[in-house]
Amino acid sequence: MIRLTVALLFLFYFSTPTLSQEIQWEPIAPGVWKGSSGLPEAYDLWSAAKPATKLAALEKLGAEVFPLNQAEITGIQQDGNTYLRFPLERGEQIFGFGLNFKTVHQRGRILRLHVDHYGGTDNGRTHAPVPFYVSDRGYGVFVNSARYLDIYAGSASRLDSDDPPEARDRNTDATWTASPYSDAVEVLVPAAGVTVYVFAGPTPLEAVQRFNLFNGGGPLPPRWGLGFTQRVHRLYSQEEVIQEVNAFEERGFPLDFVGLEPGWQSKSYPNTFSWDPIRFPNPAELAQTLKEKGVGINLWINPYVSPDAPLYNRLQPYYGSHTVWAGAVPDLSMDRAQELYWEYFRREHLDIGVSGYKIDEVDGYDRWLWPDVATFPSGLAAEQLRQTYGLLVQNQSADLFRQQNRRTWGLVRASNGGGVSFPYVLYNDYYNHRDFITALINSGYSGLLWTPEARASETAEEWLRRFQTVVFSPMAMINAWASGTKPWTYPEVAEQVKAMALLRMQMIPYWYTSFAHYHFEGIPPFRGMNLEPGFHDLGATDATPGPLDLESNPYEEAIKREIKDQYMAGPSLLVAPFFAGETSRTVLLPKGNWYDFYDGRYVGNGEIIEVPAGPDQIPVFVREGSLIPLMEPRLHAPGPDERVDLEIRHYGREAATYWYYDDDGYSFDFEKGAYTWREFKVEKDGQGNWRGTVSAAPAGKPNTIGNVRWKFMSSGN
Amino acid sequence: MIRLTVALLFLFYFSTPTLSQEIQWEPIAPGVWKGSSGLPEAYDLWSAAKPATKLAALEKLGAEVFPLNQAEITGIQQDGNTYLRFPLERGEQIFGFGLNFKTVHQRGRILRLHVDHYGGTDNGRTHAPVPFYVSDRGYGVFVNSARYLDIYAGSASRLDSDDPPEARDRNTDATWTASPYSDAVEVLVPAAGVTVYVFAGPTPLEAVQRFNLFNGGGPLPPRWGLGFTQRVHRLYSQEEVIQEVNAFEERGFPLDFVGLEPGWQSKSYPNTFSWDPIRFPNPAELAQTLKEKGVGINLWINPYVSPDAPLYNRLQPYYGSHTVWAGAVPDLSMDRAQELYWEYFRREHLDIGVSGYKIDEVDGYDRWLWPDVATFPSGLAAEQLRQTYGLLVQNQSADLFRQQNRRTWGLVRASNGGGVSFPYVLYNDYYNHRDFITALINSGYSGLLWTPEARASETAEEWLRRFQTVVFSPMAMINAWASGTKPWTYPEVAEQVKAMALLRMQMIPYWYTSFAHYHFEGIPPFRGMNLEPGFHDLGATDATPGPLDLESNPYEEAIKREIKDQYMAGPSLLVAPFFAGETSRTVLLPKGNWYDFYDGRYVGNGEIIEVPAGPDQIPVFVREGSLIPLMEPRLHAPGPDERVDLEIRHYGREAATYWYYDDDGYSFDFEKGAYTWREFKVEKDGQGNWRGTVSAAPAGKPNTIGNVRWKFMSSGN
Repeated sequence: MIRLTVALLFLFYFSTPTLSQEIQWEPIAPGVWKGSSGLPEAYDLWSAAKPATKLAALEKLGAEVFPLNQAEITGIQQDGNTYLRFPLERGEQIFGFGLNFKTVHQRGRILRLHVDHYGGTDNGRTHAPVPFYVSDRGYGVFVNSARYLDIYAGSASRLDSDDPPEARDRNTDATWTASPYSDAVEVLVPAAGVTVYVFAGPTPLEAVQRFNLFNGGGPLPPRWGLGFTQRVHRLYSQEEVIQEVNAFEERGFPLDFVGLEPGWQSKSYPNTFSWDPIRFPNPAELAQTLKEKGVGINLWINPYVSPDAPLYNRLQPYYGSHTVWAGAVPDLSMDRAQELYWEYFRREHLDIGVSGYKIDEVDGYDRWLWPDVATFPSGLAAEQLRQTYGLLVQNQSADLFRQQNRRTWGLVRASNGGGVSFPYVLYNDYYNHRDFITALINSGYSGLLWTPEARASETAEEWLRRFQTVVFSPMAMINAWASGTKPWTYPEVAEQVKAMALLRMQMIPYWYTSFAHYHFEGIPPFRGMNLEPGFHDLGATDATPGPLDLESNPYEEAIKREIKDQYMAGPSLLVAPFFAGETSRTVLLPKGNWYDFYDGRYVGNGEIIEVPAGPDQIPVFVREGSLIPLMEPRLHAPGPDERVDLEIRHYGREAATYWYYDDDGYSFDFEKGAYTWREFKVEKDGQGNWRGTVSAAPAGKPNTIGNVRWKFMSSGN
Repeated sequence: MIRLTVALLFLFYFSTPTLSQEIQWEPIAPGVWKGSSGLPEAYDLWSAAKPATKLAALEKLGAEVFPLNQAEITGIQQDGNTYLRFPLERGEQIFGFGLNFKTVHQRGRILRLHVDHYGGTDNGRTHAPVPFYVSDRGYGVFVNSARYLDIYAGSASRLDSDDPPEARDRNTDATWTASPYSDAVEVLVPAAGVTVYVFAGPTPLEAVQRFNLFNGGGPLPPRWGLGFTQRVHRLYSQEEVIQEVNAFEERGFPLDFVGLEPGWQSKSYPNTFSWDPIRFPNPAELAQTLKEKGVGINLWINPYVSPDAPLYNRLQPYYGSHTVWAGAVPDLSMDRAQELYWEYFRREHLDIGVSGYKIDEVDGYDRWLWPDVATFPSGLAAEQLRQTYGLLVQNQSADLFRQQNRRTWGLVRASNGGGVSFPYVLYNDYYNHRDFITALINSGYSGLLWTPEARASETAEEWLRRFQTVVFSPMAMINAWASGTKPWTYPEVAEQVKAMALLRMQMIPYWYTSFAHYHFEGIPPFRGMNLEPGFHDLGATDATPGPLDLESNPYEEAIKREIKDQYMAGPSLLVAPFFAGETSRTVLLPKGNWYDFYDGRYVGNGEIIEVPAGPDQIPVFVREGSLIPLMEPRLHAPGPDERVDLEIRHYGREAATYWYYDDDGYSFDFEKGAYTWREFKVEKDGQGNWRGTVSAAPAGKPNTIGNVRWKFMSSGN
């Protein structure tokens, strides 16, 4: 009866329309404000991800004023839900909302953010539908909710708007449009309240940095995570795995970790998580053999527990009501469930040397995962677990490695806001090369990492093109076990593929420092052009492009179209991939001088250039005054504390400074200060010749720099 | 502070997991039970549709026992939502969930029922996502909620199920499946409670009848509604409309009402609802001229109000927060808003003779309609208005005509459960001929009417094929104003098209009686084969078809595949349309003898037949012992009380009885008893010759039957 009364009162409470209500903002770090509307839920994205905000780094970014008119941000409670409203200016463009595959510009879109396998349409159903957007006006907004959120990103118009669209007569007015002007982002949060964060810029990149630092900063991979990985056939035996690893070595093809697909287990879908006694009679021996070859082991799992799993019974009190492929779903939001679950992984996998996981099917489809009517012993809603299960498994599995003071670098199918710092790269079963690049771009707007893995190809050319982008991504992965394709399968391009693979290895010092920027400063290692200085300055982007004239005004055209086929990699590189079938492509260069990565010649400045396709190269361009540290080509990443010789390439006509990040490359000791930023400098000496210097290694700190050689790439150009 | 406390208590209340809870069932009519879980909302589908249950007709259908195990139907409140669960047996198949376009079998599907334009996928977003399903085991379930409902129609499996799927090893077990067996339909209702209805059979058709009668029974169209309609160019003037009507007459092509597209108004999108003074200087005169020609006027509208509309200001207090194409959205759930709104339509349209409306864009898309964060002065949620706006406009506009004691027959883009009795036919902008037929089939499972209108065609053959199905549908409509196609546009098929159009007119007596069965008994005039006696008896349908062998067992194959290209029309006809490009097709005949509609020859019994395609005919088959009443071919439907001669065709080898419905064909006097069911009988006389008789006309009742001629179609066969 009391329950009845309470529910009745609740209904009454929410059936009364509420007036627009300004949100009160509280600064929680320089340039970061927290606000709430209604009564936020106890469980949100942060409850699952538990990030540790990098306060010192935020302080270093400095103070800013609140970037929006606070009176224009409102939240009301209505119908048991919370309706949020954020202003948009005319001509403003926004980016983000997670791992979109087809669109970069998000203004005008309607999304229902819902963790799921990507289904071919940017509708909010994706592996990581992060409720964060960044504006080209230089601010960001994060809605910290573990609910399915309905986003109207500038699609709806209010009758009482200060800047309403004009009613037009469709009968006879040629300017009539089906999408009238909208001046706000609106969000439906299906909960009685929510916490929201606003991040200042002043640039869009700084807003993204603040979002990333607020969520703990990016992960710092072990150096081996930046090498090559190959996934082997799901039913390979221990012996066959070793043969495959040997084949890589014999062909001089790099390999840092090998991925075992479901068949390493005695049963899968649902899983036992225990080694199959026939295929893997001695997993510890396997791990040891591979370790001696400099190769780690990554294990495929999905989290669903087979009734035949050794850990099945002890988890009984912690299962959700519904099954996934007849496997039980552990409620990993509960401490005790976590302990019992991961303890088994630690003992059976980590303790024998497994270096990481590929965590599959924590995203969708709806017909596979638990339905939204499932119940869980924690009392959390099925929806909340769906939105955060990817966060939970990342957080908890990463913790296993941290407890052993070694870093991991793995794969996961789902993530969400709050998961910035996890050492996991997203992947999926979709396989459109162009869309993979768009996803790579979008990953940078939302604190995500994404791999455009190479799986299968119809032609040698496609294999090459896909491979080239794999090399310029967070994880250089071949996941071709189903098709049986090996890196050297296509003889026509085997040479080029191998050269690219070795280039990836040479660049590990550059990648490693790029990730250090992600970790310490929140700068995404892979990101879209719209975050680049010199790009937005070209002019305002526009949600409704005016009449374009490429002949008379290519400039205007260039900045108004959505750029989703070129991206930035690390501090200095602009990557413009080719797709199979292309004989040439255009590249938009932001303002400033740009140079060819391979030969150092000047290519342009704030303009569109045409680049012919060749088999040997993926077009890469270097910003004026950049230094790129490379090491020798090799088959494995440097081991813990291993010292390597560097070739430092200088590009351009100007003096350059580069801060090189260094630590042991393996443990978490960097978190206790065991790291250095070494200064690399190139200047002209008295004779007008370029000269490079490296700052001294601080005493008592890791130092992996061997001999340094300088190469002045643009000197002859 | 009280609000805070209440909300907190609420959160506490719903965060406690609740055990499965049986629903208490209350019989509300013979074979109809009402149950509720939690606290149902005040506003549901019935609040908008306000149907008048046909209790007497339900009583006539008779008593039945509750068709399911009540203990297996549960509802719990969790997370502020209601989770419903209904059992499914092995091998059971279910149908319904509204206007699906691609699928008939719904078991295994996941749908989010959401009123919207159909987007090409059966995912619950459709013009009429009715929360009702019927089982081939002979019962139906209706969830009376005006919310977006998540339906798991036998896709999810519970850990504690009595009949759980077996865990299998994907590594090596070839029988592993991605979709394990599920034994329940589960529904997430985003509200603290909901009312549910269960309908007994014992046949699936009877369950549908009960659902329809419970919702007021089907609409009885005016006789003119069953004639032909043509929609004219959106910018036609009054004079051009008359010319078009004349053209139909001159070519001897039937026409009962003409549809005016948006340009009849002074402004559209948003709308003024007032006649354009230039294009339509004298609408009353136009209506009178057309009336004299036997042609009515149907006006296109969508409900969104232009600031320039004469009624704009007086509706000010009743608008929702958001606009649609910069037009205001009247909250038509409010009595006062309804009155002010429709009063204008009555005065400006009905009073000069307008006979109906085409009500557009009450369905979607999301980017057009109000967002779910919109608020309305009634306090209803945007979602609730989205789910019921189609019901509201149908109910309220139909009422205008009822007040004038004349029936209407119109078009609408959205409907929902509860709307069975409205005199509106659904249409859309999608245009796949095959899918149009599947929609026609599905309309019959959910108390809907659907028109497979002919709009444009790439070839003469396509035009013919589309036209043939238009003739065998609830509204014979040509909506080709945009393409400019006229019925006679393709000379190669003009003859056949005209013959089909005249056949439609001849069949008005048959259609009219078919609709009377819909109105009085709830039998859908257009329906799928799975509702047919002699179809299901062929054997059990199966959600997971076994290995099929068409050679050795065509029978088994026939009943296991989804039949979505043939349907029943009225009591006796089986229609099997051709689609452009086909040279022949198969037709599945249920058990019992079947005869060719055109020549009366026997075609088969409980078997698959092959039918060759010809230009003249759409294959139509008649059940053993059927009588089909036809009238002479003519250009307009009979007027009020007009007497017409009948040709009554007898098919088959058996004696036959047919109940012919009669009334004035125009007013609502039939609701006060001014109608008759006349008995037509065919029997063999002493000499073994067929003899037909018609029962006498009851005194003081309408009688539109003139001379009767008998035709014994199968006598020579």
